[in-house]
Amino acid sequence: MIKKRLFAPGPTMVPPEVLLELARPVTHHRTAEFRALLKEVNELLKVVFQTERDVYVLTGSGTVAMEAAVSNVVGRGEKMLAVVGGKFGERWRDLGKAFGADVRTLDIEWGTAVDPQQIADALKAEPDIVAVYVTHSETSTATAIDLRTVAEVVGRTDAVLAADCITSIGALEMRADAWGVDIPVTGSQKALMLPPGLGMLSCSEKAMDKIARTEAPVYYTRIPAYAKSLAGGDTPYTPANTLILALKRSLDMIHAEGLEAVWAATSLRARAAREAAAALGLRVFSKSPSDSVTAVCVPDGIDGEKLPKVMAGTYGLRVAGGQSQLKGKVVRFSHMGYVDAFDTLAQVAGLEMALRDLGHSVALGAGVAAAQKVLAGAGA
Amino acid sequence: MIKKRLFAPGPTMVPPEVLLELARPVTHHRTAEFRALLKEVNELLKVVFQTERDVYVLTGSGTVAMEAAVSNVVGRGEKMLAVVGGKFGERWRDLGKAFGADVRTLDIEWGTAVDPQQIADALKAEPDIVAVYVTHSETSTATAIDLRTVAEVVGRTDAVLAADCITSIGALEMRADAWGVDIPVTGSQKALMLPPGLGMLSCSEKAMDKIARTEAPVYYTRIPAYAKSLAGGDTPYTPANTLILALKRSLDMIHAEGLEAVWAATSLRARAAREAAAALGLRVFSKSPSDSVTAVCVPDGIDGEKLPKVMAGTYGLRVAGGQSQLKGKVVRFSHMGYVDAFDTLAQVAGLEMALRDLGHSVALGAGVAAAQKVLAGAGA
Repeated sequence: MIKKRLFAPGPTMVPPEVLLELARPVTHHRTAEFRALLKEVNELLKVVFQTERDVYVLTGSGTVAMEAAVSNVVGRGEKMLAVVGGKFGERWRDLGKAFGADVRTLDIEWGTAVDPQQIADALKAEPDIVAVYVTHSETSTATAIDLRTVAEVVGRTDAVLAADCITSIGALEMRADAWGVDIPVTGSQKALMLPPGLGMLSCSEKAMDKIARTEAPVYYTRIPAYAKSLAGGDTPYTPANTLILALKRSLDMIHAEGLEAVWAATSLRARAAREAAAALGLRVFSKSPSDSVTAVCVPDGIDGEKLPKVMAGTYGLRVAGGQSQLKGKVVRFSHMGYVDAFDTLAQVAGLEMALRDLGHSVALGAGVAAAQKVLAGAGA
Repeated sequence: MIKKRLFAPGPTMVPPEVLLELARPVTHHRTAEFRALLKEVNELLKVVFQTERDVYVLTGSGTVAMEAAVSNVVGRGEKMLAVVGGKFGERWRDLGKAFGADVRTLDIEWGTAVDPQQIADALKAEPDIVAVYVTHSETSTATAIDLRTVAEVVGRTDAVLAADCITSIGALEMRADAWGVDIPVTGSQKALMLPPGLGMLSCSEKAMDKIARTEAPVYYTRIPAYAKSLAGGDTPYTPANTLILALKRSLDMIHAEGLEAVWAATSLRARAAREAAAALGLRVFSKSPSDSVTAVCVPDGIDGEKLPKVMAGTYGLRVAGGQSQLKGKVVRFSHMGYVDAFDTLAQVAGLEMALRDLGHSVALGAGVAAAQKVLAGAGA
């Protein structure tokens, strides 16, 4: 009877209304109904991406959309710049290497945001860099970058800018067209409140031009094939159509609340979590914290691999521990999607109680009260 | 209130028990529970693939697993042989071209099975062909090949044999290890009775050896990454974990009935459909018909694009029309997965009624009676 709350920074909790869509009888995808659905989903996604461009939906993990953003854009031997400040920045670098790009890496201290000037300098030093890959919200370190300024800097050059927005789109302010983010990429299992299984991306005209000039070893992820199919409401290969039906439902929910209201509520929850950590004398890992996920440092003397296990095992709160070099050092929990103020309080209360269970001296409720101060008056 | 029956050769109908699994709350995939699930699914899939080798589950369309079977195996400039007798054979050829292989094509008349000797001859003429790609059941023409003999022929050479078994695994007899099919590939939305979204494949030792020797531009579909992760019960990228949970359920259903019993029942339904067509004076398109899908030729004077529309619109029976060169010439319906004898009778009865509606002279019930004769005594 233990109630299970999925607070990991993805997959996130899916509203029951959306889950029920997934239980509907499967339909065929080469039908007028599916074509109308995909076109409608495209329009709704455009708003979430803040773009006038089409949004392509690929069946796969978020990584498949990241792969598309690399494999279509950077030809063998061409130079790309990967900004690496965490596990997902490393993925951009590894994708570039896998596809034979000449990868330049800008290594950033984990938990800090890249200084856009560093990107400007790198592009000035090597003007033949054809594309820049950044992580808007680095899930592994819970760090957000100033994507707007990065886009401004890259926009002054011929390079294409791709951004991993997997834990930003639908959670943090992200304006693809206004800012000039050429290829924003996201996945279904984060702020879009769906199970994993869909990757999404859009491409600016600048990006499409580069893609048209690039000969690349690419088939399943070939963006022009998705573009051509989408014009008719189709996908080039059998889509995960039940997930797309459910996506329609979750996008309707987001739009009913209003995208900017969703951003604001996410931000408020994140601020509440950070204030709670401060009140508990705990350090937030990131120097530039993302509003979609918070990483709290495990206090000295506490087993950081045990902490998320106690939160899940004793309290039913599934949070994430640290990855790679942060293993055992942080716990991470999500503010994206289908979480509200009381979930945030449960995150804080559960952290307090689990820390206490592990022998840490905690003033139970101190974090909760600090979070409440931020959240009060704003509704659930 | 019209009851809708999905009789297309994929996606196919999903049992309600399996649909309900999809509506369960989403869980996290980096947990002991998911690792145990994936290992269990792997064991169940091995039986369906008839292999002792691991079965890798990729999040994506069936095409993503086909891509993996090409991109990992054939290095740039290496020779591969694609046997092309329909739209899905063309996909092998196109995948090879996309990844820079030196593609040899063996073009087969649509609706006929390749003569294994032709493959033997091709391999003898060009012994530097490193891999052969065939389609066990060509969905576009509803044609099955003698995969066992093809595997015998290819097994005498150093070439790796990959087979598109997307509409064969779980429907037709297919024994990967006993026959020597090095890389069988399937998808979730056919005989495995799930929505689209998962691609699956296994690799023989011979295939893994070739993969280890091949440097390829591949990341998301890199088979060794799936192999390494699966050893620990993981996937390299976020899996469509709800689909995998549902897959467990559908595999349990298949194994409860028994794989060979499922093959036999599929075969019986197909034979019933073919006998019905004959009784109605209709031609089955394929000269080597697959038991997973039947393509019936549209009689002269009848609008072949309208026929499936009438079956769907008036009768709620979603069948597929023809693709590419068969557009307007055939209707295709599935015998895979969650269909029974009475569904087969509905397919036949609906075909009779729709043909009559379109002005074709039909002895209503003649096809149904012929199908009943085949099905009677065997249960539902």
